[in-house]
Amino acid sequence: MRVAVIGYGGVGRAFVELINSKKDYLQKEGISLQLNYVIGRNGGIYNSGGIDIGDFIKFGAKQRDITKYSKGGNAEITFEKMLQNKDVDVVIEMTPTNKETGEPGMTHIRRSLESGINVVTANKGPILIAYKELKSIALRKGVQLGIGCTTGGALPSINGGMMDLAGADILSIEGVLNGTTNFIINEMEYSGVTYQEALKKAQTLGIAETNPAMDVEGWDTAGKLLILTNVLMNEDKKLKDISVEGITNITPKDIKSCLAEGKKYKLLGKTIMENGKVHMTVKLEKLDPTHPLYGVDGKNKAVRYTSDVLGDLTIIGGASGVIPAGASILRDLININRGYRFCR
Amino acid sequence: MRVAVIGYGGVGRAFVELINSKKDYLQKEGISLQLNYVIGRNGGIYNSGGIDIGDFIKFGAKQRDITKYSKGGNAEITFEKMLQNKDVDVVIEMTPTNKETGEPGMTHIRRSLESGINVVTANKGPILIAYKELKSIALRKGVQLGIGCTTGGALPSINGGMMDLAGADILSIEGVLNGTTNFIINEMEYSGVTYQEALKKAQTLGIAETNPAMDVEGWDTAGKLLILTNVLMNEDKKLKDISVEGITNITPKDIKSCLAEGKKYKLLGKTIMENGKVHMTVKLEKLDPTHPLYGVDGKNKAVRYTSDVLGDLTIIGGASGVIPAGASILRDLININRGYRFCR
Repeated sequence: MRVAVIGYGGVGRAFVELINSKKDYLQKEGISLQLNYVIGRNGGIYNSGGIDIGDFIKFGAKQRDITKYSKGGNAEITFEKMLQNKDVDVVIEMTPTNKETGEPGMTHIRRSLESGINVVTANKGPILIAYKELKSIALRKGVQLGIGCTTGGALPSINGGMMDLAGADILSIEGVLNGTTNFIINEMEYSGVTYQEALKKAQTLGIAETNPAMDVEGWDTAGKLLILTNVLMNEDKKLKDISVEGITNITPKDIKSCLAEGKKYKLLGKTIMENGKVHMTVKLEKLDPTHPLYGVDGKNKAVRYTSDVLGDLTIIGGASGVIPAGASILRDLININRGYRFCR
Repeated sequence: MRVAVIGYGGVGRAFVELINSKKDYLQKEGISLQLNYVIGRNGGIYNSGGIDIGDFIKFGAKQRDITKYSKGGNAEITFEKMLQNKDVDVVIEMTPTNKETGEPGMTHIRRSLESGINVVTANKGPILIAYKELKSIALRKGVQLGIGCTTGGALPSINGGMMDLAGADILSIEGVLNGTTNFIINEMEYSGVTYQEALKKAQTLGIAETNPAMDVEGWDTAGKLLILTNVLMNEDKKLKDISVEGITNITPKDIKSCLAEGKKYKLLGKTIMENGKVHMTVKLEKLDPTHPLYGVDGKNKAVRYTSDVLGDLTIIGGASGVIPAGASILRDLININRGYRFCR
């Protein structure tokens, strides 16, 4: 299995380290993984016989500019050249997310699939915008598109709805899909602080970004909910079809009165089927202790499906950080190697 | 996909009704399912061109003896004759469980796999006794063995450990895997009744069997834990390797003092890796509210894995009854059709 890593940030690094530390596991799986390309912003590394991964990791510990790597590093290595060389079976697309255009990931994914190359991606942008189109290219070319990392990283939300509920129709999706907002709400619950204070703490701990808008205004949750809905309920909805409210207006008084009712606030992404139409919302909801997502605290994430013949399914997990995210990329890669057709 | 149903009880019936009601779903999956055999205790039905499923369901609503079915019913239809006819791609093995010999399921599964036929089974016996051997036959013959139904029915416990944690090493397994004991404990918690009274109520409601020993003495949980451990941690352990305690000695006083501590009792099946060796127990454990299985009440089931690179994963679900059980058979069938190699 000849692999190209496109986009080399934290998750890319974690992925490359994983395929090194998981050598024995991959061997037992019958996967002989050969890393032919690592392509970053300013060029990349190319070795048609496979990059020496252990050596490259040692190099990377000291030097961030991969074009400086003596065994194949070159500013001239580009995605287009990789396509021309025709020596890759799977492209791992990990460039930064752009939710308006999907670029540059959109082009990478589209052109890889068109060239008959499997793709596993961590990039939400292209999947948000054009999953249906990309899937149809994969189908036409007989290759796979793995997107498990885009909806909660290690949380097997796509797997849960696709593999674990195979044969069932999904009637609703509910998710606590954003760790940052969950952390902020928890902080307000436990410490009685204001929203601003809790946000500041989250930023100090590196849980919230300097510009936290995507998380706290609900758009990260909305994006994940949209992907889950389109993929698992076979819809072709857009972000604008979701009614989205964030958590920025929540007060210590709200929190207190909710706790007094014996309930907890969660920023819940929810898709329900009503009269044959899907109805999608992202908003703060009060959950009582009998709700399966009531206990999903801190940086945890979870999703709950209801189905027609396999009952309800709640999945809680999805460790945060670059290693679990890299491992969720590896998971898709392994499941593809085990023969699974994500695109059908 | 030509299917034979071997063993025709409640789950068998539910499965046949499902492949009828899920016709459109199966068609969209590209599965053209043809039911060639239904074989029960006293004979069966055979139609090499496919049994008319809708018509057969109508017949079955009035008559339990399938050999009386006018379009192919015959006391002479046997499993051996089915093998000779060579017109089946998947055997669905659903005969009653025997945990000592595994028969007759053991012979059915072994001979089907040896004949190059895929098997999906609801029968715990053969999997408990001889999973490793059966898997090696499947591997040798290039066919699949689906066992998802054997460890909690609709609860995707095997899927969860195999597909959702692909690429990760599982470090521990914890499960609330038996609905009956969970119901009894809950009843004692909520009503303050004795164990005997709670058991009687469970029996009246049809939740506990007349002879509840397998459930209340912990052996059902142990069996499921053993299968999960052998399959997901690649072990070859036996039931005797598990330290098993049931719930029969629990008193209202125990329950009361546990609740007073803010905890809840669960009959927990647990496998942990200690110094490179697996250690398996089934016993009542006090869980505090921060434990992900604390809230698994009533007839619910759940499993929790810890892993090296994909974090912790808790799966709660597994609706009870013959329809979810039948649907978990269908799930394996669909995942096999989607190309998944359960046996590698």
